[in-house]
Amino acid sequence: MSVAKSSELDLLRQIRARAGRPSGAALRLGIGDDCALLRPRRGEELAVTTDLSIAGRHFRLDWHPPQSIGHRALARGLSDLAAMGARPIAAFLSLGLPRELTIPRSRRPAWVDSFLDGLLQLAAVDKTPLAGGDLSESPIPIADIVLIGAVPSGKALLRSTARPGHFLYVTGTLGGAAAALAKLAELQPRRIPKKLEAGLAPHLYPQPRIAQGLWLVRHGAASAAIDISDGLSTDLAHICEESHVAAEVDAALLPIHPAATLAQALNGGEDYELLFIAPANTRIPRKIGGVPITRIGRIVPLRRNRPAVTLLTAQGPKPLVPKGWQHFA
Amino acid sequence: MSVAKSSELDLLRQIRARAGRPSGAALRLGIGDDCALLRPRRGEELAVTTDLSIAGRHFRLDWHPPQSIGHRALARGLSDLAAMGARPIAAFLSLGLPRELTIPRSRRPAWVDSFLDGLLQLAAVDKTPLAGGDLSESPIPIADIVLIGAVPSGKALLRSTARPGHFLYVTGTLGGAAAALAKLAELQPRRIPKKLEAGLAPHLYPQPRIAQGLWLVRHGAASAAIDISDGLSTDLAHICEESHVAAEVDAALLPIHPAATLAQALNGGEDYELLFIAPANTRIPRKIGGVPITRIGRIVPLRRNRPAVTLLTAQGPKPLVPKGWQHFA
Repeated sequence: MSVAKSSELDLLRQIRARAGRPSGAALRLGIGDDCALLRPRRGEELAVTTDLSIAGRHFRLDWHPPQSIGHRALARGLSDLAAMGARPIAAFLSLGLPRELTIPRSRRPAWVDSFLDGLLQLAAVDKTPLAGGDLSESPIPIADIVLIGAVPSGKALLRSTARPGHFLYVTGTLGGAAAALAKLAELQPRRIPKKLEAGLAPHLYPQPRIAQGLWLVRHGAASAAIDISDGLSTDLAHICEESHVAAEVDAALLPIHPAATLAQALNGGEDYELLFIAPANTRIPRKIGGVPITRIGRIVPLRRNRPAVTLLTAQGPKPLVPKGWQHFA
Repeated sequence: MSVAKSSELDLLRQIRARAGRPSGAALRLGIGDDCALLRPRRGEELAVTTDLSIAGRHFRLDWHPPQSIGHRALARGLSDLAAMGARPIAAFLSLGLPRELTIPRSRRPAWVDSFLDGLLQLAAVDKTPLAGGDLSESPIPIADIVLIGAVPSGKALLRSTARPGHFLYVTGTLGGAAAALAKLAELQPRRIPKKLEAGLAPHLYPQPRIAQGLWLVRHGAASAAIDISDGLSTDLAHICEESHVAAEVDAALLPIHPAATLAQALNGGEDYELLFIAPANTRIPRKIGGVPITRIGRIVPLRRNRPAVTLLTAQGPKPLVPKGWQHFA
């Protein structure tokens, strides 16, 4: 953590107060020194991920409530930990903000306060202490979130270890975030009416699947995993590329969100569900931690001149081309 | 690490190729999965720091060569590790760039290539593998650097453990970076002539004091430490605040850089020297790893209505008010 400039000291003090004292045994020293100090347990490895959120690209100030922006920034990092089966032990936040977003608005808290509300509420759910970061004035709002998690040595779920014959599974439902974003984009003006908030939750407040990742590691059930941040078609292509395999997805098996189309379920990003692979003879329960688990296809050998991912439909097999999430650009 | 969007895949592949395979024993898995994996040694804690660099605030595209911007971004994080006495084990880079900075310029490499040259050259010196990060298009260039280091459990150098009677020491010289920046600001146009580069090095290519921090921990020599990123007056005030002590600095003892003024030595930021505290009876060598060490004052008890930091001058004692570095704002 760098030393904040004097104009940023008030905000730093406030964040330090709200982040609280280091609570987890793993976090020995939090905000206030040159670095935070983590003490890993014996036999554990640390998983580290960073996720950059930039106004206009990952969120829009005129669309998203500040609580949602804070929640989503942290959710991206937590979801990367979930994909490795890691338990969160510390988060770091590098925050660049225009000065006006740090000043209370007539009788309402400063934008940054509401942003921190959203971030810290999700952090509390997943018992993730805010251990440090950096602050700077910036012409546009940017937030880089660093998550550190712990996982028993050698047990982390990788992208590179999927094998032909194994089955593909997803947690929850797919396409809900993309469907909610499409609804959000139609609102004029874009302030969100209370009655619409619940319907938009899959986009505004996605739930990282930490408990499900931990379950898979604890039971040694999965051979590979990734989180669905860019859409099933793109993230499954990453698994295939890193594992040097191909995959078949059965369209009829997909757990499509009730509000979503097939295209949104295949290509919509930011659902933050887990896509995991398990040997065919591994018993996978119908639910893990209350979240439904659905088998959607299988891993097959990679063959020349065949697509990496094939979608099996009633009209026959079709190549499933990665059509990753394009954000707000 | 989040999955890169298709337009960023080329840059990601290039960074992955240049970052190389995980080399250190501590880094088990680098770029290419949802998270990097670190395997700490038994009996070691991990130090974590993040430092945000934003165009117009921490650097200027029209002043700084891209190699310098990459070097300086990493140097800030390494210097935070040095201040804890930690050995670097992994760096993560979250990079937001306008598209034009990723495209080669007529017969010259893309800006981002030269930025990475500067960053990776310093990383090689301090044996710090680039283990992951995130990429995004951004209207302004921003770089968030995360450094992870290892330090024997309970041995990290803190800000909060300075005690009255202990002596103050600094590595190297002070004010050189501020003096070089003042010279840089006078150049018209600001392209740097080759013959001036060496003189500007204290600002363009500061050297983090990793070896000196490791020496202090190995010898149990220091009771507290901080890096001088915001200027001696500001960083010493941080030590005093966190340790609940006061300090006296003897102006006649300060190792002022030959090109710098007293004010630059006291208040100029970004020298990235170490300020450390040691008991009066601890023998501190004149040089550590070839870098001169100078005693500049001592820690005294904090008293009501007395300044936290006093400067002893030929004209008598004066309060030394923190006048932290204001960057380019």
